[in-house]
Amino acid sequence: MKALKIPEATIVRLSVYSRFLEQADKKGIITISSGEIAAGVGVSPAQVRKDLAYFGEFGTRGVGYNAKDLLKHTLKILGLNGKWTVVVVGAGNLGSALVSYRGFRERGFDITGVFDNDLTKIGKRLLDLEVMGTERLEQVINDNDVKIGILTVPASAAQDAANLLINAGVKAILNFAPTVLSVPEDVEVRDIDLSTRLEILTFHLCMREK
Amino acid sequence: MKALKIPEATIVRLSVYSRFLEQADKKGIITISSGEIAAGVGVSPAQVRKDLAYFGEFGTRGVGYNAKDLLKHTLKILGLNGKWTVVVVGAGNLGSALVSYRGFRERGFDITGVFDNDLTKIGKRLLDLEVMGTERLEQVINDNDVKIGILTVPASAAQDAANLLINAGVKAILNFAPTVLSVPEDVEVRDIDLSTRLEILTFHLCMREK
Repeated sequence: MKALKIPEATIVRLSVYSRFLEQADKKGIITISSGEIAAGVGVSPAQVRKDLAYFGEFGTRGVGYNAKDLLKHTLKILGLNGKWTVVVVGAGNLGSALVSYRGFRERGFDITGVFDNDLTKIGKRLLDLEVMGTERLEQVINDNDVKIGILTVPASAAQDAANLLINAGVKAILNFAPTVLSVPEDVEVRDIDLSTRLEILTFHLCMREK
Repeated sequence: MKALKIPEATIVRLSVYSRFLEQADKKGIITISSGEIAAGVGVSPAQVRKDLAYFGEFGTRGVGYNAKDLLKHTLKILGLNGKWTVVVVGAGNLGSALVSYRGFRERGFDITGVFDNDLTKIGKRLLDLEVMGTERLEQVINDNDVKIGILTVPASAAQDAANLLINAGVKAILNFAPTVLSVPEDVEVRDIDLSTRLEILTFHLCMREK
């Protein structure tokens, strides 16, 4: 498949659809319509059909989709038809919370290492992991074929941590540090800036009062 | 100001610009160009000018912007020229991490209460807060004029928790639960689904291999 220009919002919704289909499948639902998916996730039926159309023909006109098949398809498109190993760099409050975040495991993400260079954090147990010094990052990444790193370090430490990940072979970074990382072209980065998300809300609250 | 249709991405970048301007101001920089802002945050100078143009005329052609003034403007647009009180519902790992997340305080967000209905969590201390039962939610929201709630409960509990917040007067919700909330029209919701963010990365990693 060539890297078509698929809108990021479509990928986000695909993730939401696949979760909804997972629930439907668990409830024993065999056939599902775009209208039912749409109602379940809060978008229009046309949006569901348009999003799915990026990835080929699914379903039968007038009948709908086979829930299990469509679930499998969406998971495959998202790359979730297997396990992904992930490392977390930054074992502060947020990093520690992510290590035990059930939502990741449920979607096939397996956190295989958590790192920090703070001596007071190294050796601390988080679930079945022990916080390691960053000098062990490369070995863990190689041994476990890790392609994804999560950065939960302060902004000032983020670029150095990103470089460590990239040099060790990581190809995708989820960055929680409120800073812009520079990375080679073959590395994907997505930022989750938690404060920015709150600021979108305050922006709208203020707009309304005017 | 009428609620112009301002792209969400513009608001996100405005938050990033304001943080960059904060750093510039701290370094004693007086005048700054769109090119310097652009280079600092990793977008094009034209994008910076276009984003700012939604909110009126800033700066002087050929001279640039006064860093302090532009910082003040951007903070005001984002609604950050004051403090916001916030409550967190869900005192699990993620909720606990957010209560102590410095990034929120630095941007003027003051978490005034954290709630759970799990008896093993109620009474637990998180920084200077004590986890309260949700029966106290309404009073805390009223006493502190809270307009923003953060939901870090499991998906199955999210709608009930959202209803509690909304009934108590909250007008904006940052939702970490992987579920679609239904809310009245005058309530703003933004979802942060952490797994979905990882799935955007796996999608791109898979696309590349094909």
